[in-house]
Amino acid sequence: MDHSALGALKHFLNHCKLILKHATHRTYSMMKLETQTLTANGERLWQSLEEMAKIGAGQNGGCNRQALTDLDKQGRDLFITWCKKIGCTVTIDSMGNIFSRRAGINNELPPVITGSHLDTQPTGGKYDGVYGVLAGLEVLATLHEHDIQTLHPIEVVVWTNEEGARFSPAMIGSGVWAGVFDETYGHSRTDSEGNTIGQELDRIGYKGSQPATAKPIKAAFELHIEQGPILEIEQKQIGVVSGVQGMRWYDLILEGQPCHAGPTPMSVRIDPMMAIGPITQRLYQLAEKFSPWARVTFGDISAQPAARNTVPERITLAVDLRHPQQDVLQEMDKAFRTIVNQEAHKYKLASCIRDEWDSPAVQFNQGCINAVKDAVEDLGYSNMELFSGAGHDSVYVSQVAPTSMIFIPCENGISHNEAENVLPEDVTAGCNVLLHAILNSAIKA
Amino acid sequence: MDHSALGALKHFLNHCKLILKHATHRTYSMMKLETQTLTANGERLWQSLEEMAKIGAGQNGGCNRQALTDLDKQGRDLFITWCKKIGCTVTIDSMGNIFSRRAGINNELPPVITGSHLDTQPTGGKYDGVYGVLAGLEVLATLHEHDIQTLHPIEVVVWTNEEGARFSPAMIGSGVWAGVFDETYGHSRTDSEGNTIGQELDRIGYKGSQPATAKPIKAAFELHIEQGPILEIEQKQIGVVSGVQGMRWYDLILEGQPCHAGPTPMSVRIDPMMAIGPITQRLYQLAEKFSPWARVTFGDISAQPAARNTVPERITLAVDLRHPQQDVLQEMDKAFRTIVNQEAHKYKLASCIRDEWDSPAVQFNQGCINAVKDAVEDLGYSNMELFSGAGHDSVYVSQVAPTSMIFIPCENGISHNEAENVLPEDVTAGCNVLLHAILNSAIKA
Repeated sequence: MDHSALGALKHFLNHCKLILKHATHRTYSMMKLETQTLTANGERLWQSLEEMAKIGAGQNGGCNRQALTDLDKQGRDLFITWCKKIGCTVTIDSMGNIFSRRAGINNELPPVITGSHLDTQPTGGKYDGVYGVLAGLEVLATLHEHDIQTLHPIEVVVWTNEEGARFSPAMIGSGVWAGVFDETYGHSRTDSEGNTIGQELDRIGYKGSQPATAKPIKAAFELHIEQGPILEIEQKQIGVVSGVQGMRWYDLILEGQPCHAGPTPMSVRIDPMMAIGPITQRLYQLAEKFSPWARVTFGDISAQPAARNTVPERITLAVDLRHPQQDVLQEMDKAFRTIVNQEAHKYKLASCIRDEWDSPAVQFNQGCINAVKDAVEDLGYSNMELFSGAGHDSVYVSQVAPTSMIFIPCENGISHNEAENVLPEDVTAGCNVLLHAILNSAIKA
Repeated sequence: MDHSALGALKHFLNHCKLILKHATHRTYSMMKLETQTLTANGERLWQSLEEMAKIGAGQNGGCNRQALTDLDKQGRDLFITWCKKIGCTVTIDSMGNIFSRRAGINNELPPVITGSHLDTQPTGGKYDGVYGVLAGLEVLATLHEHDIQTLHPIEVVVWTNEEGARFSPAMIGSGVWAGVFDETYGHSRTDSEGNTIGQELDRIGYKGSQPATAKPIKAAFELHIEQGPILEIEQKQIGVVSGVQGMRWYDLILEGQPCHAGPTPMSVRIDPMMAIGPITQRLYQLAEKFSPWARVTFGDISAQPAARNTVPERITLAVDLRHPQQDVLQEMDKAFRTIVNQEAHKYKLASCIRDEWDSPAVQFNQGCINAVKDAVEDLGYSNMELFSGAGHDSVYVSQVAPTSMIFIPCENGISHNEAENVLPEDVTAGCNVLLHAILNSAIKA
């Protein structure tokens, strides 16, 4: 090939690229125009939530559909039936995570994923997790109904055993998928009767052939009820979730000398209860110092020997510290240790801080946060940026994919309880935000 | 009879009275002289404690000889054998209380009694209770050995089920005898396996025919280990016990609203743990205000639902307030209620104070206290006046008889524990004080 021919070829190829770029832009603009007034069918979504809630319905309006039980299988089966009705293809991985895929224009491109979990707490509500899954399905149903093609494929994911109620730890399906845990560990987790996740996946027919390993993802969104009262207090319909609080769990053990409550003078006692007041009060002050996002919780406390007329030998206090900024959380951790040392020294106690869990703060992907922000602003819903105080599958997903979350209010902030409740208009609003955040991501190359 | 004969008779009778009075005084003076250098056989007492401790000997040097078990029967049998060897007569009442009596010069006079209990805690020591019984026996043995006659009879009493470890409540034997409980109630108390005191008394052959009812008593003394550290700290060999602390037991229940430790802002929490710090600290300050005798103890504390990542709905705190003056204890009770109201109100909590036990302060009989003081001063032992912080049979006995107690130090104040320990010289000193307190009371009309 001579030089002029090569030059002509190059020129031609550049021309092609320009045309392609223009075409892509045109497609995006057209699609954007075509979809900008699109809304989900809130009624249909509500009905699907009600339908799913019948499987494992609780006495008090909630749900007991724990991971990998027969009821969980029924819920999964129902979900898959619904997915197939709208033309999705379903694959299941070795951890039982379900991926329901709606093809895109270019199926070589990484998918936009959304989803959550279908398992519940033993006395859980109807919305925790389930809402994120069925709103994802509603997004696909809306696109299907309006025959809208997206550039990227879209997948709705059901993650296995998010709650951790039957098998510990929580979020094991997304955790294995994201490489936080290996599959052997995931399969070997047991419930209280000794059944393993592996056995139970086999038993209900949900151990898929696809490896539970992350693939390239364009963007991941998880829609969830807030499980806290902030949106309700602030009267906002949508929470743009920019990250997840870092959490540190400790057991603080204070040891003194047990003695008889009657004869022993106060002045010679070595009484761990004497330090509980100052320690808890100084930690609550620490939360105030780092307000409004710091959290300090003492969920459990016990005494040994727990005899009414004996000064306790040992007090064990569960301490839970949280903050969405990792550096602040570290400062809180340091202050906690100083406070314990000072007070234990003052009251002549032996002290021990047992680290029980350390979950660093998560900052979600700015592109995903912006996709949600753009959607919510286009739709005109009242909104605010906040952090998630609870763990979610998105914590693990965000380690391998650009991720963010969307919250809607839940009544009085109550969750993990049959009384969990939401407003239908918020359910619809959240689904619309999810729809447009997904579209914002899925129609762009 | 003419007037002069009547006058002569009156004169004669007056003369007789004077002679009798003189003779009694002379007898007392002679006896006092005769007994003033008398001391107990500390070695024999120590051996008897060791011998008794073999019955139910614990793994770690202590004793497990719970009320009305086969082992308790063995201990009782051994005690009675020892009593009969020195010529005592033994009677047993319907509650199994044993009265071992050494006759006096005038057996119409009310007896001086002493004693305590032979039952132990499940992992009790060798001295709690047992020392008071066997020191009483040693007093009788010493008098027997020296052939000393007392004006009043002397009785050594073994009270049934003082510890309350097997059957609740504690001090049931002395309680029925003193009329605090009726016999039907006493007999119907059950152990954890459903056996009643009545059945067990029958089974081991210790349900006596004598009614368990107080009779007139000249004076009652109980010698006991302190079960606290005051004598050791103050380096005194003898405690002259002038009363028993009043005690009030409460369960304080604080109720808030459970919520998730992550999402819920600190500012909207209704968290009972927030009030625990101020309440405990203000109560410790109350103890300081009424020091050195006030006692404030939080022997048990628990959270509900006791989940690490949930703000507790309910905290239950066991509160034990004590003071030897009833009016001060009442003031402490009032202050406690005010503090709880104020802090519960401040933190928007519901609060409930459940009264669990109210044992008013006991002031022992001044005559008995003086008998002990005179004895200890004659003997020249280091001593101090103090209050009992623990309950004893003497609390009930003092309701129907002039009563006081004598304490000796116990190592590190430890009791209700196999590690309970005492010094042989203190054991002897305590017994000598008991001997002379009894003599001071038993030789006077």
